[in-house]
Amino acid sequence: MPRTTKPSKANTKSEAKSGGGSNARGLTYADAGVHLETYDRFISSIGRHVRRTHTQRVMPNPGGFAGLFRLDYNEHLFQRNYKDPVLVACTDGVGTKVKLAAQMGRYDTVGIDLVAMSVNDLIVQGAEPLFFLDYIAVPVADQEILEPMVAGVSEGCLQSGCALLGGETAEMPGVYAPGEFDMAGFAVGVVELKRATDSLRVAPGDEILGLGSSGVHSNGYSLVRKIVETCGADLGDVDAELDPERTIGDVLLEPTRIYAESIVKVQRRYRVKKVISAMALITGGGLVQNLERSLPEGVDAVIRRKALPTDRVFEWLAEKGRVDAEEMARVFNMGVGYVAVVRPTFADSIADQLQRSGERVFRLGRITKGSGRVRLK
Amino acid sequence: MPRTTKPSKANTKSEAKSGGGSNARGLTYADAGVHLETYDRFISSIGRHVRRTHTQRVMPNPGGFAGLFRLDYNEHLFQRNYKDPVLVACTDGVGTKVKLAAQMGRYDTVGIDLVAMSVNDLIVQGAEPLFFLDYIAVPVADQEILEPMVAGVSEGCLQSGCALLGGETAEMPGVYAPGEFDMAGFAVGVVELKRATDSLRVAPGDEILGLGSSGVHSNGYSLVRKIVETCGADLGDVDAELDPERTIGDVLLEPTRIYAESIVKVQRRYRVKKVISAMALITGGGLVQNLERSLPEGVDAVIRRKALPTDRVFEWLAEKGRVDAEEMARVFNMGVGYVAVVRPTFADSIADQLQRSGERVFRLGRITKGSGRVRLK
Repeated sequence: MPRTTKPSKANTKSEAKSGGGSNARGLTYADAGVHLETYDRFISSIGRHVRRTHTQRVMPNPGGFAGLFRLDYNEHLFQRNYKDPVLVACTDGVGTKVKLAAQMGRYDTVGIDLVAMSVNDLIVQGAEPLFFLDYIAVPVADQEILEPMVAGVSEGCLQSGCALLGGETAEMPGVYAPGEFDMAGFAVGVVELKRATDSLRVAPGDEILGLGSSGVHSNGYSLVRKIVETCGADLGDVDAELDPERTIGDVLLEPTRIYAESIVKVQRRYRVKKVISAMALITGGGLVQNLERSLPEGVDAVIRRKALPTDRVFEWLAEKGRVDAEEMARVFNMGVGYVAVVRPTFADSIADQLQRSGERVFRLGRITKGSGRVRLK
Repeated sequence: MPRTTKPSKANTKSEAKSGGGSNARGLTYADAGVHLETYDRFISSIGRHVRRTHTQRVMPNPGGFAGLFRLDYNEHLFQRNYKDPVLVACTDGVGTKVKLAAQMGRYDTVGIDLVAMSVNDLIVQGAEPLFFLDYIAVPVADQEILEPMVAGVSEGCLQSGCALLGGETAEMPGVYAPGEFDMAGFAVGVVELKRATDSLRVAPGDEILGLGSSGVHSNGYSLVRKIVETCGADLGDVDAELDPERTIGDVLLEPTRIYAESIVKVQRRYRVKKVISAMALITGGGLVQNLERSLPEGVDAVIRRKALPTDRVFEWLAEKGRVDAEEMARVFNMGVGYVAVVRPTFADSIADQLQRSGERVFRLGRITKGSGRVRLK
């Protein structure tokens, strides 16, 4: 685990800050502002968050420079011996949702968002998540802020069934203003070549299942923050129209739903048949744009407007910002965070299984012959 | 390649900035400051930088949400059929070297540093690099800045023999002040379990080979910047004591040397014998601290002071900052960027091979019985 074993490295990246320990003879490293003790306390505090995500496949690597993850093809620890494994990797941040977290002084949820953003992309390819690494950059290593961040990342990893294999904490006060921070995440998964998502499988008659989102997820926060600013809402207030029990800020910070467990479960159940034709993660661009990316030419996705959910948070945002419906649908997930296009004969059983995994499932419509468009009816 | 196919995603993370296109009726996404055209131009400009790093193992994934890398165990594309593959992963940034790049307005070198920081960590474990992903965060998507950054990342990937499998560009003006930016990198490599670096192999008699650094690399920039600031040097000036042909800033921005190619080459040459006992990347903490991390209990590494190089950049920094020798050695690599502890009978041929790969090789000393310490004589 690089982070727990490389305190010196992170510290050498500390930005010059205080002039503590100035030396009459010349400059020392302390003059350049290193916070060794603070960093060491942080490192020992996060150990448990990291370890709880570790399975047998994570190899101990004390003093090591990198995280080690054993694929184990020959030893049958790897649950389904892959014949032609394809590694799937992606990276993402959580965008300006970090600004909202900083404004709220609440750091335990964005780590979940960070994992969600990468892992939800992996599963669209048919992959099962293997491991995750995080990069967190702060102006100063403050355990009160960093520990909840890493705890959130760890929670996201557990929700995704992947190991938190490593991470880096960069202390850079010259780059990040007090109170600001940024985070980037990186996920690796694996899929058997023949079972990787291939949108060419999509065929007329396929059913379109939408999975409920947990709210705004991690896209569109430029507009969210603009709306809050424009309507003068206080993040610390409760607005009964939005949620009678949580503050506006808490509702807007609701972590992105991670679909890994339920989607991987469906794929494990159908080992031979390819019951899922295509999938799409609904991020910026909304349902139409993201689903269109997953459609081949020659078919349309016909969605029944009435089948779409009406989630309170989006109604509230539309009203407070006087954002019209089309614009809302272009920016936000509007309640559907993930879409699976499935073979019609398996639609009922897949929907049922997803519901038993805790998903809200919306039978959104069907695939017809067409020209690669999403049409709302 | 997620980056080339997800313009909407990056854009939805754009921070509210200008109020252009304000709408009398209510807010639109444009009001929240999205730069679609700029972003699209950037995406098309980086395509060639990304594609030149792609080998047969990178699978085309148009419209995809993640990068796909084929391990190909069964098809012999994968050069050495791994029997028990261990994935090695790490993440790192370039610390406050980004500040220096921003001050200089020079963005084509830090991308190489970014790849170097992660890839050099991978090879310490005995791994060969497979692929890399980058996260670049800027206040505003400016092609003039982003394209050289990605070109640098691409160059680093080529130097490392790995594919640039994906990346994310986050536009966040509320987090990053004008001119500031940050970058994080993620690298994945693979090593056969039995050949993974294990410091327990280190034995008395082993020889210690040091590989020359290209300068400060990417650690200690807190102190570097403090020294420059304190002595009043102008980054744009040439100081003949430092380098008669390059500006101070250019010398200090010299990219981190990537040791992947030469180290992987040595390991491929000796497929059965374990000729390398341990390796260490010399980052923050200097030669002593980093080499000690790679030593088992029961041995010491005895280094001859006279065998250490004296590189001009470190002499200049020490003089300008009046930093004493011990402090310098605790912070900087002092000219030795990488260490390989090798079996004595192979030391000559390994040193020779490394030299033919373009490395400066220093025969630093030997392993003796001891207590896990590095001793300078």
